[in-house]
Amino acid sequence: MPIAFISSPLDRQAGVRTHKNDVTGLISHPEARLVKIAGDQVVFRHGKLDTENTSRETEAIFLGLDDARRPWFATHANIAEPASGTELQGLRAVMLDGQLQHDELSILAQARSLVHWHERHGFCANCGSRTEMQDAGYRRVCGACQAEHFPRTDPVAIMAVIHQQSILLGRQKSWPPGMYSALAGFIEPGETIEQAVRREVFEEAGSVVGDVRYVASQPWPFPSSLMIGAIGFTDHDSLKVDETELETARWFARDELELMLHKRHPDGLTASHSYAIAHLLINEAMKLI
Amino acid sequence: MPIAFISSPLDRQAGVRTHKNDVTGLISHPEARLVKIAGDQVVFRHGKLDTENTSRETEAIFLGLDDARRPWFATHANIAEPASGTELQGLRAVMLDGQLQHDELSILAQARSLVHWHERHGFCANCGSRTEMQDAGYRRVCGACQAEHFPRTDPVAIMAVIHQQSILLGRQKSWPPGMYSALAGFIEPGETIEQAVRREVFEEAGSVVGDVRYVASQPWPFPSSLMIGAIGFTDHDSLKVDETELETARWFARDELELMLHKRHPDGLTASHSYAIAHLLINEAMKLI
Repeated sequence: MPIAFISSPLDRQAGVRTHKNDVTGLISHPEARLVKIAGDQVVFRHGKLDTENTSRETEAIFLGLDDARRPWFATHANIAEPASGTELQGLRAVMLDGQLQHDELSILAQARSLVHWHERHGFCANCGSRTEMQDAGYRRVCGACQAEHFPRTDPVAIMAVIHQQSILLGRQKSWPPGMYSALAGFIEPGETIEQAVRREVFEEAGSVVGDVRYVASQPWPFPSSLMIGAIGFTDHDSLKVDETELETARWFARDELELMLHKRHPDGLTASHSYAIAHLLINEAMKLI
Repeated sequence: MPIAFISSPLDRQAGVRTHKNDVTGLISHPEARLVKIAGDQVVFRHGKLDTENTSRETEAIFLGLDDARRPWFATHANIAEPASGTELQGLRAVMLDGQLQHDELSILAQARSLVHWHERHGFCANCGSRTEMQDAGYRRVCGACQAEHFPRTDPVAIMAVIHQQSILLGRQKSWPPGMYSALAGFIEPGETIEQAVRREVFEEAGSVVGDVRYVASQPWPFPSSLMIGAIGFTDHDSLKVDETELETARWFARDELELMLHKRHPDGLTASHSYAIAHLLINEAMKLI
């Protein structure tokens, strides 16, 4: 089972975006698909992802062409006047209940991040005037000061830390009871990925990480992160948990992790969901202990 | 020689940022340092980085504590009324001429990205009202709609591509004559790092990359990128260069790359500057061919 959001079938065809006539041609394509999103909610129709292109939206965001060369678009859903037969579902719930294939779920990651960015960027951060969508959704331009604005992707460092035969995991108060996962935090301006891994682990758990090894990455559309997964190594098992960030953090041995990953831990402890990169990181770290 | 911007000595002390009194205490510290930046320009004094904390700025951005526990701050330089004895220097020029140590240069990367973000984010992208700096420079808040805004860091994929015993490099028209470097492009919402590497190489040079191997990362403060360096592998040497993106791209053998890296190529060709992660990627790729 792959982790979520990494299986997009779309060819983004970035070169098309700046050619308005080509984009108009694609949205008029008889086989064009249009996904509709508002905030964290996705429009479904009779239990399936609603891809019907009824609107011929001119303000739609071009996502790319699928394997059958059908163009996919995304737009902001008008949830005040829902079309008959449609219902809204939260993207997190859709991910967790596994009702969509990985390719559709991955298309929704791109769609949700871009739609959210437009929903929150109707004005120019530089001068406060209204901005307009350009380049099929990949740029907004301010008519007053001419500033250009581009969709954002926020890199996050997420890490499993190894000390000898143990792996460090933590939990936040807001998580389901008993669930532990990898520590994580936004990479800041002026930092490398490796520095961010060391800083986050030290800030949250008081552990000093030396070597850092990159493992994999995952788009995380809540709202627009890029999870950059790594394994960190430390020579000491001492911890000092920052309780404003975490409820707790501790070292787990292989036996206990096996039980958690298979949901058979006697105390009901679990490790992060298989759709999240943390799950993959824990599995990769277990190969090294 | 390390690449630029990866050698910050600062402990960011992120926990302090939300405690206004602690931040005020740090800016009043007798040994506090304050760097001043406007756009791409940095304030120097008598040929050295100007770190004098004359202003007791309350709107300064907290960067962190150095090895001697001295607090460092950054602020927007008032270039309309420059202090006597000061001069402005472009950060790129400062990087290239090597006049600063790597630790100071790395502090400037953090400072420049954050100052630039504040310079360009005085208004709320959500509603157009004015925003205010909070958390010692790591958050802006809209007084009207209460939206929170955070500094951005834009992940960029940069890659050396290997085919058998050759490495693919390209050049942009705007670069110094004869200079070649690694291809690169912004990672988009909904993409993994590995997908972005494959997309960029295909878009710019028409080459189909299979395996992707992460190498290293580098903050790049022009204005706030995170360069994520990788090596890609391809089974075919055919190329189709997108001339709107690149002037040209081609395969280079080891002999030629050696001459380029040491600036002894008979045709005056060079590879990217040793301060850039592209240089490191080319060196790493050469170990694999």
